[in-house]
Amino acid sequence: MGLKFSIPYQIPFYETDITHHVKLPHLLAFSLQVSGMQSESLGNTDKDIFDNYGLVWIVTDYAIEIDRLPRYNEKVTITTEAISYNKIFCYRNFYITDEAGHQIMLFKTTFALMNYETRKVAEVPDEVVAPYGADKIKKLLRGPRYKTLENPLENLYRVRYFDLDMNGHVNNSKYLEWMLDVFNLDFLTKYTPAHIDLKYVKEIHYGSEIYSGYEFDQGSLNSQHQICVDGNVHAQAIIQWKEIGDE
Amino acid sequence: MGLKFSIPYQIPFYETDITHHVKLPHLLAFSLQVSGMQSESLGNTDKDIFDNYGLVWIVTDYAIEIDRLPRYNEKVTITTEAISYNKIFCYRNFYITDEAGHQIMLFKTTFALMNYETRKVAEVPDEVVAPYGADKIKKLLRGPRYKTLENPLENLYRVRYFDLDMNGHVNNSKYLEWMLDVFNLDFLTKYTPAHIDLKYVKEIHYGSEIYSGYEFDQGSLNSQHQICVDGNVHAQAIIQWKEIGDE
Repeated sequence: MGLKFSIPYQIPFYETDITHHVKLPHLLAFSLQVSGMQSESLGNTDKDIFDNYGLVWIVTDYAIEIDRLPRYNEKVTITTEAISYNKIFCYRNFYITDEAGHQIMLFKTTFALMNYETRKVAEVPDEVVAPYGADKIKKLLRGPRYKTLENPLENLYRVRYFDLDMNGHVNNSKYLEWMLDVFNLDFLTKYTPAHIDLKYVKEIHYGSEIYSGYEFDQGSLNSQHQICVDGNVHAQAIIQWKEIGDE
Repeated sequence: MGLKFSIPYQIPFYETDITHHVKLPHLLAFSLQVSGMQSESLGNTDKDIFDNYGLVWIVTDYAIEIDRLPRYNEKVTITTEAISYNKIFCYRNFYITDEAGHQIMLFKTTFALMNYETRKVAEVPDEVVAPYGADKIKKLLRGPRYKTLENPLENLYRVRYFDLDMNGHVNNSKYLEWMLDVFNLDFLTKYTPAHIDLKYVKEIHYGSEIYSGYEFDQGSLNSQHQICVDGNVHAQAIIQWKEIGDE
């Protein structure tokens, strides 16, 4: 277990949805910001890592547990903790707690370092992660097995200018937007994710046509998702849903 | 002139674009948040106004002056000031200043109060705006004349779930995204807005097909925009562009 770092956060109006809850892709993006703030507090900024090594942090996997999504104006605390790392991956948790200190969400994340020029994943230099105090482990943690969908329902999306981030590719919070947006308004105002496993396979660039495909089982309230470009899978997810109100 | 209220803001990673500058629609959305914070600091929250009058604040017009857009990680201050109001409209400025205290952006905005049930603009109750200390005026301030475009180039957009906000309609920052996204990557990495006039005419709801139309004059670097649904104009804008680097 490594160092913890916390930031208070009040859910802003423009990041809440029609149900008055925070937009989940926004909370993921903001949480990555919190780990960036931790790096800054330790004098180990993303800019340093880019300048010294030519590397940028990317997220490869999420496992997201949601008791409930925070609501408009609610004050929560986001705590991040470097858990462990191996040659390639860094494992980091984010805990969202409410004003009473109860944990309402947990994001388990896997980070890697990408060479900005070659766009390939690089080995983790020990000295880059030393400031976070996490243990080095040999083990590679495995996520769930994602199956390729046989007959998905598909929505077409086009990459928009504002989907891109400073790294020159689609920001990873957008993938989740494309996955959730395939459901209609009626569904999304009645049901909310209880658990999400999400895996990023490949970058997406400007100009791409995105097929957000899914299969949904109404009985188990389980959906499986894939984001494809030119027939290649770029991300996969499994979502367990629950009714809003079962919180 | 009314009360001023300031909030420091550091530009987060996930709200910067491929040029490393803040995404302008995000800065507009965040600025509205700052006026909400002022309301909260004065004990005059949006929730109070909704509970007591059934009214919600909407923005009808922007006039945006941009010397330069703040960059990733830059620390700016956003100051809001209630300028004046009349029977229907409230005029409010937002000043973005850099760390040295220089003003780099100015948003002149027009707010109105919408009845949440009827979706019609309501008269401004004096007691709702009294806490901001702005002068009541008789005059209606006029924006520029927007012309209906004769032969616009058009892009088609579909309203997505996460485009909606708590008020149940498309958040106004999304209109600007649709307007700017009609330009290609090459243009948007070379040119940046110097001045934007933007007028909201009608709400947009879930399920709508959006035509974002524009005409661009390369000589004067001036573009004119309209957002249409079913042939009706829902928003209009005029943008004066400049080369990035002419800052």
